[in-house]
Amino acid sequence: MQTLDTPDLDSIRKAADRIRGHAHLTPILTSSAIDELLGCSLFFKCENLQKIGAFKFRGALNAVMSLDDDTAKGGIVTHSSGNHGAAIALAARIRGIDAHVVMPASANAAKKRAVAAYGATIVECGPTLADRDQRLTQLVEQLGAHVIHPFNDSRVIAGQGTAALELLDQVPDLDVVVTPIGGGGLIGGTALTVAGLTPEARVIGCEPAAADDAYRSFRAGRIVPIDTPQTIADGLKATLGPLTFEIIREHVNDVALTSEPGIVEAMRLIWERMKIIVEPSSAVALAGLRENELGLTGKRIGLIISGGNVDLDALPW
Amino acid sequence: MQTLDTPDLDSIRKAADRIRGHAHLTPILTSSAIDELLGCSLFFKCENLQKIGAFKFRGALNAVMSLDDDTAKGGIVTHSSGNHGAAIALAARIRGIDAHVVMPASANAAKKRAVAAYGATIVECGPTLADRDQRLTQLVEQLGAHVIHPFNDSRVIAGQGTAALELLDQVPDLDVVVTPIGGGGLIGGTALTVAGLTPEARVIGCEPAAADDAYRSFRAGRIVPIDTPQTIADGLKATLGPLTFEIIREHVNDVALTSEPGIVEAMRLIWERMKIIVEPSSAVALAGLRENELGLTGKRIGLIISGGNVDLDALPW
Repeated sequence: MQTLDTPDLDSIRKAADRIRGHAHLTPILTSSAIDELLGCSLFFKCENLQKIGAFKFRGALNAVMSLDDDTAKGGIVTHSSGNHGAAIALAARIRGIDAHVVMPASANAAKKRAVAAYGATIVECGPTLADRDQRLTQLVEQLGAHVIHPFNDSRVIAGQGTAALELLDQVPDLDVVVTPIGGGGLIGGTALTVAGLTPEARVIGCEPAAADDAYRSFRAGRIVPIDTPQTIADGLKATLGPLTFEIIREHVNDVALTSEPGIVEAMRLIWERMKIIVEPSSAVALAGLRENELGLTGKRIGLIISGGNVDLDALPW
Repeated sequence: MQTLDTPDLDSIRKAADRIRGHAHLTPILTSSAIDELLGCSLFFKCENLQKIGAFKFRGALNAVMSLDDDTAKGGIVTHSSGNHGAAIALAARIRGIDAHVVMPASANAAKKRAVAAYGATIVECGPTLADRDQRLTQLVEQLGAHVIHPFNDSRVIAGQGTAALELLDQVPDLDVVVTPIGGGGLIGGTALTVAGLTPEARVIGCEPAAADDAYRSFRAGRIVPIDTPQTIADGLKATLGPLTFEIIREHVNDVALTSEPGIVEAMRLIWERMKIIVEPSSAVALAGLRENELGLTGKRIGLIISGGNVDLDALPW
């Protein structure tokens, strides 16, 4: 598989084989209190309980484990606002190779500490996507290392699809699967899995209104870039890539927006009622269901909790 | 079974049948970071993810479901610093009967809100155990309701034992099982289950040094009462009852103490590395393993996370 082909169900199953034994099979949690509030049955796939505290480990590990030995030896470079960086760092450690991660100087402190703790080298850059790309290009030239993009990469998308593969195995008869949307790796892998296994189920993506590039692109039928977004959901600032956009256009049924206060409320609701730590980006999926009329009353909904990496000294309440 | 008989494995299995379908089968989580730190393999039985956010739901529901219809109709009274109160409130709602819960006026605000939200009536009292007992006696006279003691009750202990029953089924070959100790209901039920199923495994209880009645009683061979304890682990302020003390004396291998800063550190470690919300009382078990030399290097340890009810506006860091 080339890194920019659309993955199929077979490549997602192969990814599941590749990461087995390294990644956690994360649990499904339910909350009767939240079900009552929303009038539907929610099944939370807890990727905040995944290694490195986010689903990103699945895609990064699948990509790293897919490399031939010669490529692997040269090490890996990537850019990340945080979770993909930690995921690449741990995956590289498991494979026994070097990793460099380009991160904005302003990135979440807890996420930076995690990248460093797993043994990768952090290379700081400015806040814009252009800053990141420029620094990454320099690094590739300098190190000759292999780039694993955080989402616009078939191996990464196939790895992220393994969360939905488990979810559909753990919970039968889902009507809908909901995820947050950042760069589109999670929803892309999820949509491909659902399309392959239960095509009658709907797939809905949720996005902060303050970072609504996927919403705009989905409706326009072409990638609509936006300015550097300002949202508490720091994991969702990335904009879609050509590969993830095409998958979303073909396989996602709807994209819903959510307000910033709605994200914080949903986050606190999950912490209080479910006793799990979720980061704002994770809460976007529940916030999207609460703030939009999506015709989901009485439905069985799988919701992927994307991550739990929060700076405990800077909570939003 | 009388309410002050020592439960046997059969009564714990019957409790499991009685609560099935109402209580969650809670997941086991692991953390390679914490394993590395402690040099052993820890399996966390996550009762913070149980209904009402604590193992207490198991014992309360078993007791409420054990009542004959005539007794049940008269309603229930109990006293609680919080989690047992919420557990009785929800169990009574499930059974469709009234519940009154005597709580100290100073009890954790989140726990009070939970008791009220599940529909029980809160009756406030002073901070000492004597205050609680007096108010409870008044209520029983006034209402003629049935008392379900938070821990010194066979039905409650048998219910709490179902957490270990699941744990031993979920994780084979445990060398040790560790729980916090408050009134002794959780460790009592756990010790009886372990004694019945894997008598070669050790059972260790952990307790705040600031509330060390179980430690003193265990070593003295008789119940040693202490003054009203001041500890951040608000769920562990209760002192052992005659029934729980006898079970602990017979079936528990050791009681370990922990410092107050050690409890907060362990709590934060679990939040950061495992992405689950645990209350200070839960963290006492991990703190006890970190602060004492218990000969557990290389062992497989089941650790019961007792609850996750925390006031998110008053975190200890």
